[in-house]
Amino acid sequence: WAIPSFSERARHWQRIKGTTIGTYAADLTDYDDVVAVLREFRPDAVIHFAEQPSAPFSMLNVATARETQVNNVVGTLNLIWAMRENCPDCHLVKLGTMGEYGTPNIDIEEGFITVNHKGRSDTLPYPKQPGSFYHLSKVHDSHNLIFAAKIWGLRVTDLNQGVVYGVQTEEMSASKLLRTSFHYDATFGTVLNRFCAQAVAGIPLTVYGEGHQTRGFLNIKDTIQCIDLTVKNPPQPGEFRVFNQFTEQFSVLELANLVKGTAAEKGIKVKVESIPNPRTEMERHHYNAVHTRLLDLGLKPHRLSDTLVASMLQEIMEAKAEIDEEVLLPKVNWRVDRTGMVEAEVAAAGGADR
Amino acid sequence: WAIPSFSERARHWQRIKGTTIGTYAADLTDYDDVVAVLREFRPDAVIHFAEQPSAPFSMLNVATARETQVNNVVGTLNLIWAMRENCPDCHLVKLGTMGEYGTPNIDIEEGFITVNHKGRSDTLPYPKQPGSFYHLSKVHDSHNLIFAAKIWGLRVTDLNQGVVYGVQTEEMSASKLLRTSFHYDATFGTVLNRFCAQAVAGIPLTVYGEGHQTRGFLNIKDTIQCIDLTVKNPPQPGEFRVFNQFTEQFSVLELANLVKGTAAEKGIKVKVESIPNPRTEMERHHYNAVHTRLLDLGLKPHRLSDTLVASMLQEIMEAKAEIDEEVLLPKVNWRVDRTGMVEAEVAAAGGADR
Repeated sequence: WAIPSFSERARHWQRIKGTTIGTYAADLTDYDDVVAVLREFRPDAVIHFAEQPSAPFSMLNVATARETQVNNVVGTLNLIWAMRENCPDCHLVKLGTMGEYGTPNIDIEEGFITVNHKGRSDTLPYPKQPGSFYHLSKVHDSHNLIFAAKIWGLRVTDLNQGVVYGVQTEEMSASKLLRTSFHYDATFGTVLNRFCAQAVAGIPLTVYGEGHQTRGFLNIKDTIQCIDLTVKNPPQPGEFRVFNQFTEQFSVLELANLVKGTAAEKGIKVKVESIPNPRTEMERHHYNAVHTRLLDLGLKPHRLSDTLVASMLQEIMEAKAEIDEEVLLPKVNWRVDRTGMVEAEVAAAGGADR
Repeated sequence: WAIPSFSERARHWQRIKGTTIGTYAADLTDYDDVVAVLREFRPDAVIHFAEQPSAPFSMLNVATARETQVNNVVGTLNLIWAMRENCPDCHLVKLGTMGEYGTPNIDIEEGFITVNHKGRSDTLPYPKQPGSFYHLSKVHDSHNLIFAAKIWGLRVTDLNQGVVYGVQTEEMSASKLLRTSFHYDATFGTVLNRFCAQAVAGIPLTVYGEGHQTRGFLNIKDTIQCIDLTVKNPPQPGEFRVFNQFTEQFSVLELANLVKGTAAEKGIKVKVESIPNPRTEMERHHYNAVHTRLLDLGLKPHRLSDTLVASMLQEIMEAKAEIDEEVLLPKVNWRVDRTGMVEAEVAAAGGADR
């Protein structure tokens, strides 16, 4: 569907809501740009969503791996140095990912873990085992941010977000002029969006490997709610805190079967297919991640249910003619053939996150 | 002292030892350069020492912080992608730093720690709490390397090296034409080298803060021995291993008093002075770092003793006229004045590492 420009959406917001959203076109990797925006806007909080967000893109080749890490790390470095020198009391809300943790064989805590070792004890940053150069870039950011909070007294919240699903927010549903992009492809889309698009297109839901990969998920409406709660409850100066931002855990196979069942109720018959996993990830593993801090601040989750999947399918059906089946297939393989040949492509799609 | 060029030293080595050392002038941040060298040389092992090595330099301003992280992360990314595509069985020996660990309140293990948590257990990457954008760049590298070993089957050894001291190796002592640089300044030098230079110059040994900061140290001769042992004992394909590369632990104050006492025996009277610490670091803390893996491979440490400090003082005295007292003073402060003004300089010098 057509997406109005950022400034058009801001103007429309002003017309219907009466409040002004300032827009700047700036490059976070350009330090002078960042400083100029901070000096003019003088923010109380910065919500940093401006990173390269795709794991498959980061795994494509050396250039995209480098681009992902340099863009993400440099953008965040510029931002924290600019905040240090221009608005050191401002609250940085940084989008991280649950994928930073990987799949350890112990429960995942919110950013820190108390370790008892050889008769002593300390609370330390939770060990990270990310699964792509993209997820690694977020781990690098997190380490840089812990340090910036400690030495400069910055206030930082790192939102380790789960896999987002959903077509639009309430504001977008109420007004098409506020709509933004909907990603369902194998590179920038997420798994539930992709399964819904596959169902509407009448093609098999492609699960990577066994499909027992379990992750934390949340509705895009709850993303907005979490950001709002985070900004309204800032940390202390010098405090680096982590919120695990998701509401429910599902395996990829559970999601595929949920979409299949809901589609059937709407008269769409689809198959669930297993394809070779293009990613290097455990397909059977322990997964239990704490996520209480946003609930403690008042988060009221929109839980995934047949009703929600049904409404997603309905919304996507309105744009059925626009679905490009080509982009549903994964183009990037994590592995390398040890003879030196890179496997450039695999046949078909379904990892949990992007 | 005058330092012959890299290729001059290589030619001299060939004359006196009879073995050839190939030299290439290449930029690790240029992928094509890296590939060209690997294709021509076809290495069994790559020892990667080519990173920006100074913590104070990385803390100077946003440009040097960025330069440090981009140079170090991109250089290592280029190298692992080039190895993946050209020599996937090659062994990468990467220089990390003990400073990646920071000063946790539990013992430091060699790269990994077994954590028991809520009735489950896993062995995870040791949590890192580095103290500068330079040390952070090494943490970023380590995370990228764990991943590269896991997904591509690369063989990787991460040498978490302590603070190096010493003027030269045995080969350099035997032949002045093999000599390389000796760093004693506050930005690129390390603490014992700096104290020895201060003693020879007859100026106070400047300790940052209380001087109870404790770190792992090793003689530059043992650096060479560790690299040799590491290359002779490569890891398995897909194995990422960490060696904590140091031989003894000292506090900064212990080192200052050792240099002061040894200098006195040579008739040089120097004072030990405490100056405000320009770094953000704990001055009293637990520090006990495991370092058995290189000993298990056969490392025979050169321990620090009066005799060794006496010989260092002797070697530096031969170059006394060349000591630049100006560079012994720290120019970079880790902190920021919360009114927004950056403290550009502090008066004088003594952190443990560079």
